[in-house]
Amino acid sequence: MTTAKRDTYTPETLLAVAVQVFNERGYDGTSMEHLSKAAGISKSSIYHHVVGKEELLRRAVSRALDGLFGILEEEGATRGRAVSRVEYVTRRTVEVLMAELPYVTLLLRVRGNTRTERWALERRREFDHRVAELIRAAAADGDLRADLDTRLATRLLFGMVNSLVEWYRPQAAGGHDRAQVADTVVRMAFDGLRAGPGL
Amino acid sequence: MTTAKRDTYTPETLLAVAVQVFNERGYDGTSMEHLSKAAGISKSSIYHHVVGKEELLRRAVSRALDGLFGILEEEGATRGRAVSRVEYVTRRTVEVLMAELPYVTLLLRVRGNTRTERWALERRREFDHRVAELIRAAAADGDLRADLDTRLATRLLFGMVNSLVEWYRPQAAGGHDRAQVADTVVRMAFDGLRAGPGL
Repeated sequence: MTTAKRDTYTPETLLAVAVQVFNERGYDGTSMEHLSKAAGISKSSIYHHVVGKEELLRRAVSRALDGLFGILEEEGATRGRAVSRVEYVTRRTVEVLMAELPYVTLLLRVRGNTRTERWALERRREFDHRVAELIRAAAADGDLRADLDTRLATRLLFGMVNSLVEWYRPQAAGGHDRAQVADTVVRMAFDGLRAGPGL
Repeated sequence: MTTAKRDTYTPETLLAVAVQVFNERGYDGTSMEHLSKAAGISKSSIYHHVVGKEELLRRAVSRALDGLFGILEEEGATRGRAVSRVEYVTRRTVEVLMAELPYVTLLLRVRGNTRTERWALERRREFDHRVAELIRAAAADGDLRADLDTRLATRLLFGMVNSLVEWYRPQAAGGHDRAQVADTVVRMAFDGLRAGPGL
């Protein structure tokens, strides 16, 4: 029944299985044998779809990167004051991260041992760089605190946002809904934990 | 010259080498063979010091945990208003993380496959729980914003703090000094990125 089963796989469902295995075992620790077992199809059936595991990695991280770079083309990221654009990009990054959780998780765990991984790291840095530029522009407008080093603040902002891949679980009991998570990240990053005089 | 070389190793220097290898290869992916090569001593010399790699893991994560739990005993964490105690613990956590970077990095990457790893995860959760309690107390005092879910805010605070293991490199060119990093984390977490009316 291998043939019948193979036919039920599309490139998308195979990709979903591969991403799960990569996240569990690490990309380096995953063999075609592991992918074959997890998907319940033969290795030759997998080769029917892709030339090897590196192609699956490229497709998976591309999905995450397309989601992230897509944000920068949206109107909220391209018009208005820089500080509003930073807020918009922060909120949308959290939303994309939650919507594409396994793909972004994989992207954030990429190490750089293969050409595809190095390419993914390069693109990630490019995304971070684009946001850092926006943050600098907002600081230059006087809308962000002048007493924070922009580069350091950018790293901490991404550190907070990216930490979601470690603890956010959409199905968890008592889990937070996406809008609440996105709101909390934006409020905390921009206005901090402390009760302000206006609250 | 194996004997001579072994004698130059103390439990501490062996531990430092082991932690580096664990962080590079992952604990699961590290064999006694890898440790022996990295240390430049025979496996039997390593067994002279420890019963196996799990003992090295336990010692390493204990060092990180002792540093973190030590903070909670300090005067700044036990006296004064809850909000000041949360600030103090945040600052000191960043400082301990930077001072014990490889050990805390290992602690934060523990997966839970062995008894030692599960114990380490349990202790980490206990630390997070203690800080979450302090944050709840500060919120109850009215010193932290009432519009943030405490549990979510605690996770985001730790997400920001713990992200340091991913990017903070003490020797990096253009690196930030420790006091600056600790200050920036505290200001950003408590007062946010946005320029306030008083600034």
